[in-house]
Amino acid sequence: MRNIVIVIALALSIAAFPQSDAENIKKIYNTSLSNGMSYQWLDHLSNKIGGRLSGSLNAQYAVDYTKRMLDSIGLDKVWLQPVMVPKWVRGTPEFAYLETEPGKTIPMNICALGGSISTPIEGLKANVIEVQGIEDLKDLPMESVKGKIVFFNRPMDETLINTFSSYGGCVDQRYAGAMEAGKLGAVGVIVRSMNLRIDDFPHTGSMTYGDLPNEQRIPSAAISTRHAELLSSMLKLDDSIKFYFKQNCRQLKDVQSYNVIGEITGSEFPKEIILVGGHLDSWDLGDGSHDDGAGCVQSMDVLRLLKESGIKPKRTIRVVLFMNEENGLRGGNKYAEEAKRKNENHIFALESDSGGFTPRGFSFDCSDANFEQILSWKPLFEPYLIHYFKKGGSGADVGPLKGNDNVLAGLRPDSQRYFDYHHAANDTFDAVNKRELELGAATMTSLVYLIDKYGINAISTDRKLKD
Amino acid sequence: MRNIVIVIALALSIAAFPQSDAENIKKIYNTSLSNGMSYQWLDHLSNKIGGRLSGSLNAQYAVDYTKRMLDSIGLDKVWLQPVMVPKWVRGTPEFAYLETEPGKTIPMNICALGGSISTPIEGLKANVIEVQGIEDLKDLPMESVKGKIVFFNRPMDETLINTFSSYGGCVDQRYAGAMEAGKLGAVGVIVRSMNLRIDDFPHTGSMTYGDLPNEQRIPSAAISTRHAELLSSMLKLDDSIKFYFKQNCRQLKDVQSYNVIGEITGSEFPKEIILVGGHLDSWDLGDGSHDDGAGCVQSMDVLRLLKESGIKPKRTIRVVLFMNEENGLRGGNKYAEEAKRKNENHIFALESDSGGFTPRGFSFDCSDANFEQILSWKPLFEPYLIHYFKKGGSGADVGPLKGNDNVLAGLRPDSQRYFDYHHAANDTFDAVNKRELELGAATMTSLVYLIDKYGINAISTDRKLKD
Repeated sequence: MRNIVIVIALALSIAAFPQSDAENIKKIYNTSLSNGMSYQWLDHLSNKIGGRLSGSLNAQYAVDYTKRMLDSIGLDKVWLQPVMVPKWVRGTPEFAYLETEPGKTIPMNICALGGSISTPIEGLKANVIEVQGIEDLKDLPMESVKGKIVFFNRPMDETLINTFSSYGGCVDQRYAGAMEAGKLGAVGVIVRSMNLRIDDFPHTGSMTYGDLPNEQRIPSAAISTRHAELLSSMLKLDDSIKFYFKQNCRQLKDVQSYNVIGEITGSEFPKEIILVGGHLDSWDLGDGSHDDGAGCVQSMDVLRLLKESGIKPKRTIRVVLFMNEENGLRGGNKYAEEAKRKNENHIFALESDSGGFTPRGFSFDCSDANFEQILSWKPLFEPYLIHYFKKGGSGADVGPLKGNDNVLAGLRPDSQRYFDYHHAANDTFDAVNKRELELGAATMTSLVYLIDKYGINAISTDRKLKD
Repeated sequence: MRNIVIVIALALSIAAFPQSDAENIKKIYNTSLSNGMSYQWLDHLSNKIGGRLSGSLNAQYAVDYTKRMLDSIGLDKVWLQPVMVPKWVRGTPEFAYLETEPGKTIPMNICALGGSISTPIEGLKANVIEVQGIEDLKDLPMESVKGKIVFFNRPMDETLINTFSSYGGCVDQRYAGAMEAGKLGAVGVIVRSMNLRIDDFPHTGSMTYGDLPNEQRIPSAAISTRHAELLSSMLKLDDSIKFYFKQNCRQLKDVQSYNVIGEITGSEFPKEIILVGGHLDSWDLGDGSHDDGAGCVQSMDVLRLLKESGIKPKRTIRVVLFMNEENGLRGGNKYAEEAKRKNENHIFALESDSGGFTPRGFSFDCSDANFEQILSWKPLFEPYLIHYFKKGGSGADVGPLKGNDNVLAGLRPDSQRYFDYHHAANDTFDAVNKRELELGAATMTSLVYLIDKYGINAISTDRKLKD
């Protein structure tokens, strides 16, 4: 009995003092690693629902499921924000082969790029011209392109440490390759998958025709890196070989969808909004576990981990699961429009959309003064091996919230494996490690905790009160 | 023509100046990522040879293969260092089940621990007593243990960020559990696998009987984490259930094996030796890709990457592939004995034995002065996201080289996934990412490059010359 009294007295005395930031952050990490929900939620999103392309039935299931989960964790408010989204459908599986001589073919792994038109119903067969990129293509005389399939084969630069930089140096081929080739009279486009490995998965992703007239729009597909290598070496042996592909994807009318939103209302400064989010839509080939199921479940768990760790936010903490990041960014744009219309004050917005790998830190889009403030917290993250704090990009969905004084940020996990899975059929639940996912959720929660506690100096209400 | 002249003049002018450390390190990373050999060597070691338990035919194949590869890269000297190693064999696959009532059984995934004796030929069936560790066991009255199978079920602490610390907090059960249970009259031991995930793989590893008399030695096996959880919950329902297991592993006589060694002889201070290494033996269940095929091929590539990057070492750079780290450390001990006998001066020894994951940095076992010197190089590693430089352990095999003034070090990769694979059947080539492996090799090479260039101040010849 005496022991119990001592324990209670001790507990009360601890509770009477505010816990240190280091202790609260330790509690957040411990809770995520021993009692996180992110992995379980991702299991459902990936294995019970699957790929969630904008406008699909799966995307709607994901809206329903995540809203239900947010309802279940006892937030102050959960709602859906309507947004119209494009609906592109892949149709029946794509089919392709290389014809080395009449009657002799080699099957090729391809997938239509998101937004592409279909081939003619009987497919499309033509000679191939290989180029290393759009500049390379533009140097060619029109007659060497006309009637051909243009094969964009510039690989990602393997010597860059940040694989997103390698991606950035290549993705123009995928996004604008068909538009540029169409202008020169090509009949189709095949793009080497944005993948640093040599493997068998074609990687989809968005592409555009810009304002090209319909008659110049040509079908565009990605080819696996292994088959890109094979195609390239076969072309070196004989440039008269032909490539055949058939796809019947198409763009339908826009449909109704939603951003899923939940919040804990701030106890002192409810009008200062701290946002965390990821995008709920994904491509359709895999189940979108890394891109971006991981970011969604981590963002959802940020609010829950704060609650479970006994932290009552002073500011409003809001989770937003954006719809349609992959092929339109309608959710991110809609959210920012509505925020502007309501004159909402987003002091901070953090996106997780770089995979569920071991977190290394954050990149920030903010003023030097705000960055200095955040850098002063870096030692608190050292026990968790979070070391990367750099100015740079944030995330596509939170980008439209950019203001003069606020801070946008992106979680930066280890990037080495990301493009092994990105937009491909192997972006599945088994490629996500539970601990790595949970460490990411805890890292996000810890930064949100600090932003909530100290505000963003340039714009926060409590600083203004002090001034 | 004029352009060619300018290019040649430019190339000569660059060559006339010593390249900066940053440039050399960039070259090392670029070479590893675009022209490394570590992944190709590991493919052979893992997929063409496989698990390499000390004393096995596979271990000999691995000795032959790696010596041949070192011969092929044009080192100054390659040789084998004889060492006698223990030979333990697993025998036929283990077999186990839980008997919940007579005639009703549930299969259980187990594997014998390395060094364990066999069960009786007909197997062993007994009641089970679950404990959370050796201390817990020692608190029990002898009669509650006698005649039973002791089930050590303390899980790894999931809240620790460094998973090697979680392992360190648990591995006593595996290493000494059978010895302690044997003293109390238990008939067998089952140990929860050292794995942070819940999955179906039992994880082997070394164990000891100390100097226990033969009649107290009892068989010991690891059980998968999923089945450990199941066994524990079944015991809570009914503690009269029985566990059956059968294994026919045994310890044979010591056999001849080898450490594989190669070196580039230093051009100025050949007697100062800089060692890099890993261990060539592995457990037998998987193919030992992470533990420690990765460390071997990375260490081999350190010498090749220096050559390919045009760096001529002043000091002797030696790669050592140690035999028998897993169940005896005979190779590490033998190497250190011979080094002492020959009065060799190892100023630095770096081991890679923590998996082929994204490198995060190094731990060092050295004086403060030497550590300060190394810390001054940290900014050179920042572009490669290598941030972890801490005093701490090095590696089991290089440990015996510890001297007063030298520096021992261990490569520290991301540790989150390591125990998903450690000592289990899924430690296979497909679990290793090419870029992550190559980044590790480049990180090791870069540190070796700096140590070679600047020496270890406390003991290096050139400092003495300057004094």
